[in-house]
Amino acid sequence: MTRKEFRDLAPPARAHEAIASLDLDPDPETVPLDEARGRVLAERVDAALDVPGFDRASVDGYALRARDTFGADEADPARLDLVGRVDAGEAPEGYVDEGECIEISTGAVVPEGADAVVMVERTDEEGEEVLVRTSLAPGDRIMFAGADIAAGERALGPGTELTAREIGLLSALGVDEVPVRGTPTVGIVSTGDELVRPGEELDSDAGQIYDVNSYTIAAGVEEAGGEPKLYPHAGDDMAEMERVLREAADECDLVLSSGSTSASAVDVIYRVIEERGDLLLHGVAVKPGKPMLVGTLGDSAYVGLPGYPVSALTIYRTFVAPAIRRAAGVPEPRTATIEGTMAVEERYSEGRMRLMPAGLVEDGDGNTLVYPVDKGSGATTSLVEADGVVEVDADTEYLERGETVEVQLFSPDVRAPDLFGVGEDDPALARLLDRVQHPRYLGIGSRPGLRRLRDGTPDVVVTSAPGDSGVEHEELGAWTREWGLVVPAGNPDDVQGIGDLVDRELSFVNRTTDSGLRTSLGNAVADLADERGVERHALVEAIDGFDRAVRAHESPARRVLAGKTDVGLGLRTTADRLGLGFVPLGEETVRVLANPDRVGKPGVEQLRRVVEAGDDVFDALPGYALEKR
Amino acid sequence: MTRKEFRDLAPPARAHEAIASLDLDPDPETVPLDEARGRVLAERVDAALDVPGFDRASVDGYALRARDTFGADEADPARLDLVGRVDAGEAPEGYVDEGECIEISTGAVVPEGADAVVMVERTDEEGEEVLVRTSLAPGDRIMFAGADIAAGERALGPGTELTAREIGLLSALGVDEVPVRGTPTVGIVSTGDELVRPGEELDSDAGQIYDVNSYTIAAGVEEAGGEPKLYPHAGDDMAEMERVLREAADECDLVLSSGSTSASAVDVIYRVIEERGDLLLHGVAVKPGKPMLVGTLGDSAYVGLPGYPVSALTIYRTFVAPAIRRAAGVPEPRTATIEGTMAVEERYSEGRMRLMPAGLVEDGDGNTLVYPVDKGSGATTSLVEADGVVEVDADTEYLERGETVEVQLFSPDVRAPDLFGVGEDDPALARLLDRVQHPRYLGIGSRPGLRRLRDGTPDVVVTSAPGDSGVEHEELGAWTREWGLVVPAGNPDDVQGIGDLVDRELSFVNRTTDSGLRTSLGNAVADLADERGVERHALVEAIDGFDRAVRAHESPARRVLAGKTDVGLGLRTTADRLGLGFVPLGEETVRVLANPDRVGKPGVEQLRRVVEAGDDVFDALPGYALEKR
Repeated sequence: MTRKEFRDLAPPARAHEAIASLDLDPDPETVPLDEARGRVLAERVDAALDVPGFDRASVDGYALRARDTFGADEADPARLDLVGRVDAGEAPEGYVDEGECIEISTGAVVPEGADAVVMVERTDEEGEEVLVRTSLAPGDRIMFAGADIAAGERALGPGTELTAREIGLLSALGVDEVPVRGTPTVGIVSTGDELVRPGEELDSDAGQIYDVNSYTIAAGVEEAGGEPKLYPHAGDDMAEMERVLREAADECDLVLSSGSTSASAVDVIYRVIEERGDLLLHGVAVKPGKPMLVGTLGDSAYVGLPGYPVSALTIYRTFVAPAIRRAAGVPEPRTATIEGTMAVEERYSEGRMRLMPAGLVEDGDGNTLVYPVDKGSGATTSLVEADGVVEVDADTEYLERGETVEVQLFSPDVRAPDLFGVGEDDPALARLLDRVQHPRYLGIGSRPGLRRLRDGTPDVVVTSAPGDSGVEHEELGAWTREWGLVVPAGNPDDVQGIGDLVDRELSFVNRTTDSGLRTSLGNAVADLADERGVERHALVEAIDGFDRAVRAHESPARRVLAGKTDVGLGLRTTADRLGLGFVPLGEETVRVLANPDRVGKPGVEQLRRVVEAGDDVFDALPGYALEKR
Repeated sequence: MTRKEFRDLAPPARAHEAIASLDLDPDPETVPLDEARGRVLAERVDAALDVPGFDRASVDGYALRARDTFGADEADPARLDLVGRVDAGEAPEGYVDEGECIEISTGAVVPEGADAVVMVERTDEEGEEVLVRTSLAPGDRIMFAGADIAAGERALGPGTELTAREIGLLSALGVDEVPVRGTPTVGIVSTGDELVRPGEELDSDAGQIYDVNSYTIAAGVEEAGGEPKLYPHAGDDMAEMERVLREAADECDLVLSSGSTSASAVDVIYRVIEERGDLLLHGVAVKPGKPMLVGTLGDSAYVGLPGYPVSALTIYRTFVAPAIRRAAGVPEPRTATIEGTMAVEERYSEGRMRLMPAGLVEDGDGNTLVYPVDKGSGATTSLVEADGVVEVDADTEYLERGETVEVQLFSPDVRAPDLFGVGEDDPALARLLDRVQHPRYLGIGSRPGLRRLRDGTPDVVVTSAPGDSGVEHEELGAWTREWGLVVPAGNPDDVQGIGDLVDRELSFVNRTTDSGLRTSLGNAVADLADERGVERHALVEAIDGFDRAVRAHESPARRVLAGKTDVGLGLRTTADRLGLGFVPLGEETVRVLANPDRVGKPGVEQLRRVVEAGDDVFDALPGYALEKR
């Protein structure tokens, strides 16, 4: 077998077929009743006994012969001799003859001779006699043996998912061991020398990253009713990888590998497949996820997933999860799609099917808007910023704004967030959002946030950009934060202000132009230029690192902490929290602006109240103050 | 405290309030990442590190200085010196100077000096030189440190349910222990001397029944995100019950008891509550479920559920499960209601809110019909014969046929069965139904089945009643079954036919008048009367047990097996299977009749095909034959 280049990509339908042709079915098993919830019956269960197992009193009262009460009523009660008593869980001792009755409690065995029970409320006891103030028909207030379900009747069919209700019926039948579909065992092998398990030490300088796919795919396997088994990842040691693959194939119904599409890893997989199985498919015309392998390894099925987490999970959900659900007997979730209209236009260039990660937001009228979430398949945050995927055909070149699309939700419980905000990354905001029900916030920066608000997608934007926002809005609240230069603890270089950055050999880390803080810094530099009577750009060029820009608010300070720069742009609260020094340069105002059409949304209202009542948050953050209105 | 009589019933809203006022909140806990799926975050998780932790190549190619490629294209490539190579998971060794490049693989650290990566497809290697056939801008094909998520950014908020996606993000952040909401521990105490745990021996003569509520409520607690803890049931030993209640209150956040509404059990509960807690509510104006208690037992919350399984589960779901979900932080399931129209009229007499168990069926046009499932709250089969409940106000006197109602589904995955059949209980049918996707079949007998078909509720009826069905239908298939008298093995009384039942002292067990078999027997008796020239009723009265009728097809044979009768009405196949003797009396035809409006339903079509292809089923059952058409 020679190495293939993923050039002849299979259409997605063929990938579904290839996976459907694999045998992942586990053997059925027997589980105790108290572990049966969520499992699927492997075979029909017929009742082995009558329920109830005896003629059972449905009320507290007296067992009697109905014929003895014919014509009785309130005015003219029948008068019977009380000859005994029977409680639930007792064998009745007496026999009910003509003119007699036996006191009986709910659930007790109706004694022989009796053919009806009168409820206690319609009787009076007088010494050894009972007055019955109503007429009864044979069978009244008795649940006959087998009336609920009788021995030999079909109780539950194969394929039934066992919830509390089915477990109730099985209990009534005395079943304490349940034959259920087996759980497919899914081995998960992730490869790559750069991967480190969460919790272990990470060496970023050596290009290490945490292994995302192992736990993500394991959770996805559990969601689909399979049992994940994580294998120690093999690095790029090919002999070791071969050994792990063989071991997983021996032990599991399905083996999933991820990140194994590098040249040398593919070679190993080919070798193992060649020796022990079949390669059914290699490469699929879908984005994300092109590099996908489908085959067999001995008795086990095998699917090779792409390495990027979003691609791996998307391909897993689309192609693999349905097969695991089928093998486990778990029904496809029913209401896992929702219709919405595109909030923005989206264009495509490549001629392959696209599984577009999509976020949802409700507009002011309760309609669902859909927007693409595309941070590149290397970004793990897009895992949680999307609510589902829109399947876009290979020959679709663009989706228009306002076009209706169907979103395949990640799970039936997924719903649009109650509040969708974008804009500035701010530590007070992070805390305030904890008090809002089901929010989503994307820290894309003040300026991109204002652009998104103009497009009409988010409910609110949080901006620290000075000046006019240039977009119609309603202000929900505002606060100020102190900003300046973050320096090492004790300010060893004795930095006093921007002038030091210009005049001395100090390295600096700035924020990106998306950030409001960057604009505040730019204004301060312009003021200094005016003061010195020089051009602004002359000062900018004199600062070592003015263009060394990072996206997030803490990042410059963390570079200072790591000794990678002398000075960083940041907030007093960040410097304090990280134990660093701080040179104040000013205050800026962070404003929460709502889309005027969305001020009626409960989530938006909630955010307004949370900001107004947020004194404790602002008090706890040095340099912060709520703007009272 | 004196015993109360459940006379002053609280309105349902007050029961909700009382339960909402209880504190079931468990302490938060920390779980390993691989056990975090399905749990709910207890606090905000901010990123503790940059993801990625370094400037990362997004493609296989060459790291270089973008400025060196200005103006390069296919025809006029830039020519750079290849000075090294860096793979994923390695610290780069070289530095990229002007006019140089370093080979780099996807995911590797971009070496210092370089500010862009060109993908290998746009290059050629020539000895120690690389030809770059495109122009690059700074940052091309690089994912910068922190671009995915940066240290200090808000990653996930409190209250977030952890699915595969959130677990992916936590993995990327290196989090291996997750702070989650605790799981409320729910103690389950069921009482009653008559209760026996499934799997143990049952003495029906002593009125014993299997304990249904313990496992059912336990499964319901798990579904709501709680951890059930079953306590050994205390029988009616009140000292023991008191001990168990105290123990459960000490160990759990919530204690649920069921079946403890008998006078003596209530007394014990009152005593324990009086001593250690508060009684908040006693009795609710809702059917089923009137006898409900809400209170506290020391630090634990307490709810007393009714004893009947359907009542207990209904009250649990309506009042208790939402409180457990809130305590566990599990969101209310979203799509758990469906609208439908009443298939039949339903009248109410009592002035309290009713939670009407309801079944669903789709009509020929795909509309959802709703019918009441009411076998009495003592019946466990109604647990699985309903799909949800309709909440009917206390002042509603009837629901009209065709009226729109809202059904609260038992779970979001519940859907109408693909096939809804009613009628004769038949062993061949039980097996055929195993081959139909998601069927529901109620063995209510041939005659009631025909009546239901006339009402238009079911898709099909299965009838063995001879003669004209009297209802418009399309016949899907039919088979014959041999019926007769079931006698002990070896036929010790040498029974030859009905004449022996008439002429000799033999006890007999018949089927109910709902059954087709009973009609066949009646016809045979009439024939014998003609033959003998006597009145039919004279023969009937001479048979000891002609009116001793049981509902299910195997029940008479099982009475023979148990030595409780000499002769039973039944099928050859039943006699064979139970190892009993059989005296054949005739053959009857079992016909599968479809509602003509429903023949297009896939489930109905599937049943037709299953019957046609059912030779193996009929071959395996003695006395059976498929009627070929």
